[in-house]
Amino acid sequence: MAQFDTGLPSISQIQGYIKDQQLLELKLLTGDSFSGQLCWQDQNCLCLITQDQQTIMIPYHAIAYLKPQAPKA
Amino acid sequence: MAQFDTGLPSISQIQGYIKDQQLLELKLLTGDSFSGQLCWQDQNCLCLITQDQQTIMIPYHAIAYLKPQAPKA
Amino acid sequence: MAQFDTGLPSISQIQGYIKDQQLLELKLLTGDSFSGQLCWQDQNCLCLITQDQQTIMIPYHAIAYLKPQAPKA
Amino acid sequence: MAQFDTGLPSISQIQGYIKDQQLLELKLLTGDSFSGQLCWQDQNCLCLITQDQQTIMIPYHAIAYLKPQAPKA
Amino acid sequence: MAQFDTGLPSISQIQGYIKDQQLLELKLLTGDSFSGQLCWQDQNCLCLITQDQQTIMIPYHAIAYLKPQAPKA
Amino acid sequence: MAQFDTGLPSISQIQGYIKDQQLLELKLLTGDSFSGQLCWQDQNCLCLITQDQQTIMIPYHAIAYLKPQAPKA
Repeated sequence: MAQFDTGLPSISQIQGYIKDQQLLELKLLTGDSFSGQLCWQDQNCLCLITQDQQTIMIPYHAIAYLKPQAPKA
Repeated sequence: MAQFDTGLPSISQIQGYIKDQQLLELKLLTGDSFSGQLCWQDQNCLCLITQDQQTIMIPYHAIAYLKPQAPKA
Repeated sequence: MAQFDTGLPSISQIQGYIKDQQLLELKLLTGDSFSGQLCWQDQNCLCLITQDQQTIMIPYHAIAYLKPQAPKA
Repeated sequence: MAQFDTGLPSISQIQGYIKDQQLLELKLLTGDSFSGQLCWQDQNCLCLITQDQQTIMIPYHAIAYLKPQAPKA
Repeated sequence: MAQFDTGLPSISQIQGYIKDQQLLELKLLTGDSFSGQLCWQDQNCLCLITQDQQTIMIPYHAIAYLKPQAPKA
Repeated sequence: MAQFDTGLPSISQIQGYIKDQQLLELKLLTGDSFSGQLCWQDQNCLCLITQDQQTIMIPYHAIAYLKPQAPKA
């Protein structure tokens, strides 16, 4: 992250997703897409626990976008 | 953003789009393209609310371009 | 821009293109290509007005190259 | 790494993988994927020893993601 | 350029190519490839005059590699 | 290189490859792959002499990975 300041919306919104264990879709610049919940964020990476319990460390620079995902019916 | 200074045209133009709730097309380096309105910007990301009400967090580094979109007739 | 200093050739050449309303071709890392005139540049972005009058904000990091375009005969 | 601080989860998690000689899958922005164990990390790169004993130096900026890999049955 | 210091080999080698008007092949991350001579370099860009006399401004971040090109027989 | 400090493994390992004239495979983010020996490294680039004696300057940001290559039998 260019700036890791919890007062910024980008940091606090992710902090909220972690606290609420929000199910997210995370798309990478490679086209890979993961669905899961974030366990932590820092200046360098996000860490996602996928629905099949894999721990994926994703450097911030590789992220294309992230968005809340509606839980499957 | 390399520099988050509201005196810069890049920051103030986006600020204007947020204030006016301008409908935008936002193209990513992945080729993904989103249409919606910006709800906030900061040093790290833009946050877009799409026309089907999804909240998409897009790191600045993933953006290819953004432009106002004429509302569909 | 790594460094936004009007003494640098990269900044002054673009400043010249803006002043002269030079018709440019601007290619992005996505392969997208735009033709138009620059209305401003800053530390973060270039802003291009295309020939069909669209205002396109392009973060500097997304640019592959830019070159003057001969006006169509 | 934007910030090489052993107090950060991103650094300490990788430090743990090195200590435990955890088998990892490492995917690059090119789509290349390697499986092996990390021998070191620093501000610039990760160094992976693959299962066929190749030493691969990977600049941090080229990494899409990394995750522990279950050993083949 | 991360560091624009004429004492560095990367800067002085390019300075030499400019002085000698060395014919170069310049490949971009998009896969585009240009052949021509450099007219200047700075912290942000290289400027290439192609063999058909086009002036191409290439941000440093878009360059994949550059190499001297043997003149066509 | 984010940090050009000869005490770091990334810098000293490459220094060793240069000293030993180690044959390397160098893969770029474009998918291009070169085989040769490094003649120098600095904060911005690596310079490779290929097996057909071409001098290739590769900005650090364009590198996907590098690894020693077993000499062809």
